[in-house]
Amino acid sequence: MDIVVQKFGGSSVADAEKLKNAAKRIVDAYDSGKFVVVVVSAQGDTTDELLEKAKQVNPAASKREMDMLLSTGEQISMSLLAMTIEAMGYPVVSLTGWQAGISTNSKYSCSRIKKVDTERILRELDSKRIVIVAGFQGINKFDDITTLGRGGSDTTAVALAAALHAQVCEIYTDVDGIYTADPRIVENAKKLKNISYDEMLELSSLGANVLQNRSVEMALKYNVKLEVKSSFEKIPGTVIKEVEKVEKMIVRGVTKDDNIVLVSIVNIENTPGKAFKIFSLLARENINIDVILQSVGRGGTKDITFTVDFDNAATAVRVLKENLSALGADSVEYTENVSKVSVVGAGMASNPGVAALMFEALSDVGININMISTSEIKISVLIDQKDSKNAVRAIHDKFNLA
Amino acid sequence: MDIVVQKFGGSSVADAEKLKNAAKRIVDAYDSGKFVVVVVSAQGDTTDELLEKAKQVNPAASKREMDMLLSTGEQISMSLLAMTIEAMGYPVVSLTGWQAGISTNSKYSCSRIKKVDTERILRELDSKRIVIVAGFQGINKFDDITTLGRGGSDTTAVALAAALHAQVCEIYTDVDGIYTADPRIVENAKKLKNISYDEMLELSSLGANVLQNRSVEMALKYNVKLEVKSSFEKIPGTVIKEVEKVEKMIVRGVTKDDNIVLVSIVNIENTPGKAFKIFSLLARENINIDVILQSVGRGGTKDITFTVDFDNAATAVRVLKENLSALGADSVEYTENVSKVSVVGAGMASNPGVAALMFEALSDVGININMISTSEIKISVLIDQKDSKNAVRAIHDKFNLA
Repeated sequence: MDIVVQKFGGSSVADAEKLKNAAKRIVDAYDSGKFVVVVVSAQGDTTDELLEKAKQVNPAASKREMDMLLSTGEQISMSLLAMTIEAMGYPVVSLTGWQAGISTNSKYSCSRIKKVDTERILRELDSKRIVIVAGFQGINKFDDITTLGRGGSDTTAVALAAALHAQVCEIYTDVDGIYTADPRIVENAKKLKNISYDEMLELSSLGANVLQNRSVEMALKYNVKLEVKSSFEKIPGTVIKEVEKVEKMIVRGVTKDDNIVLVSIVNIENTPGKAFKIFSLLARENINIDVILQSVGRGGTKDITFTVDFDNAATAVRVLKENLSALGADSVEYTENVSKVSVVGAGMASNPGVAALMFEALSDVGININMISTSEIKISVLIDQKDSKNAVRAIHDKFNLA
Repeated sequence: MDIVVQKFGGSSVADAEKLKNAAKRIVDAYDSGKFVVVVVSAQGDTTDELLEKAKQVNPAASKREMDMLLSTGEQISMSLLAMTIEAMGYPVVSLTGWQAGISTNSKYSCSRIKKVDTERILRELDSKRIVIVAGFQGINKFDDITTLGRGGSDTTAVALAAALHAQVCEIYTDVDGIYTADPRIVENAKKLKNISYDEMLELSSLGANVLQNRSVEMALKYNVKLEVKSSFEKIPGTVIKEVEKVEKMIVRGVTKDDNIVLVSIVNIENTPGKAFKIFSLLARENINIDVILQSVGRGGTKDITFTVDFDNAATAVRVLKENLSALGADSVEYTENVSKVSVVGAGMASNPGVAALMFEALSDVGININMISTSEIKISVLIDQKDSKNAVRAIHDKFNLA
């Protein structure tokens, strides 16, 4: 079976016009003889509207009821998309998460997919139907509706592609691919034809905002070929797949992330186990922390500094403040005016020159570096937010990415 | 188990304020020691908004996808109502039709409930939770979502009350009970304390608009005690239950229905089987017809005239026109400017004076009668729509119902 999974985000199904546009993409694939499974997000602002309604009656509603509410968003968009395809004369059926056999664990609002039972989808495909599946949602062992959290529709698409052994999972979005830098910042940024999972992982966790990390991780794990494409223009996108390791250093792109907050715990006791205590407190709240810096202990105390997503910052600060005395620290400080700018590329670890070149680029334009973090395939620096666009341009130029 | 089922219509859950109001009714019952199961309709205009969205992409969408779309309306209102109750500190859970075990046949958009599996609801009640159930929806044997058609939430409420052996099924609505006539037309209309199922059936099918016929039929069948109450005022409503047959003629109310169309098939061949043919054509389209009048055959032809709901009129006329030659008729004519005015009351059949009194009332105010139809407990007349309010007032006065 030659199956393709196509995923359309909220902006790609926002209104009747866009639904028709998406439907065209779908029936094109169907007409070319493929079995087509489509995953949709909620229409444009639906989720925000539902959140607003919830807030009016209960600003602290249970996550179970919140998932019940929010999951209607995809049910609306998927049935509208199915109707649009019906109007074009094609056989189609829409399925909710539970109808599509998507089982999750019971962590409401941030569930993980545990299993996909493809029986219903395969039966519908066998009947020559186009199958539209609600993204972002599943069902837990209590027969309750769960949602997968931010970027959940990408995860649904990849999970279905893996379970159905699809040839490719196409992610239709506002942009037409992955670029060497954000084209809104760097005019001569170049679209990449191919990129490896690892590189994409670093790019997406660094703010490229095209694909959610979890979905790329899953694609890597199950070897699902991804393609990021434009919903609006019919041109090739960027293919994400396993590539052979290269010895040659290749910087693939420059990214920035303004959506972070720098948190510092000041004058913490310089005794073993403090870092463990801090990060287990945050893990309990499901908060991912990023770059971590620990000052050299001096006079019995040290500082621990790390970055978190803007969305999680308030919770992180609250939790740490509540535990200040247990941690034996003086205070918790934070600043929002920071950006993380990164270069990403395979083979970086074996090419020490990359870091030097990056720092030179920043030095050339007089930008100060606050923190540095490196991995096998990326180098990130924390700088003042006001400098971030300049930094991206300078680095992009320095590496001749255009 | 002392179970009460409460049903709140769309206007009773239309916004945050009304949700809070409904929630108060619910927790009052819970506080009084009852096990509470609540059935909700979609919020105010949700259904219309969803219908409009569907129309934009496909004015002739399949009923399966339409049900998928419309069923989100109740899922939204039920989760919001649950959140409202959570905010008041009470344990609560919301359940979709399929979660609540409501199985239907597969007639999308007008399904019938076949079975209610109460296991999940009883488990939730056992855990001391208030249970909110989506009205209007169920699931068919294909695991697809179905809707019950107009007034479906009333049917859901009665079906649950029957399956759970509830003490009473309370229908909360805009009005505070069943009146001897519409209080907006007849100033001194009186609220009834009690009414029998049969009387309520005639009243609801005659345009009293408070309860859907199907739900009353089901209440009669399973002996579910119904109470129609105000969502807004805390006063007793009207109880609908089995009452002993009375010899004495009691006219319980006067109703009018403007929402009808009079259809005539003109010069139909005067041979056997024609009426059967006409009404089986209409039955195939799921169209209920009401008052039927057949002219005395003359010169080999006759006319057949009947009334249908406004919503079904266009389909009825189309179907009949398509089959004109098969029916051997000349033409199909229709008029929308008619009203059906009725008096309802047990013991009417054994009191021939009722019809005479009703016709006298109309004659007093100079209103012409086009058609007459009678049953065990009602007498209906078809009159010009412009006269309908006057007719209701005149009859209400004549029978001293105030």
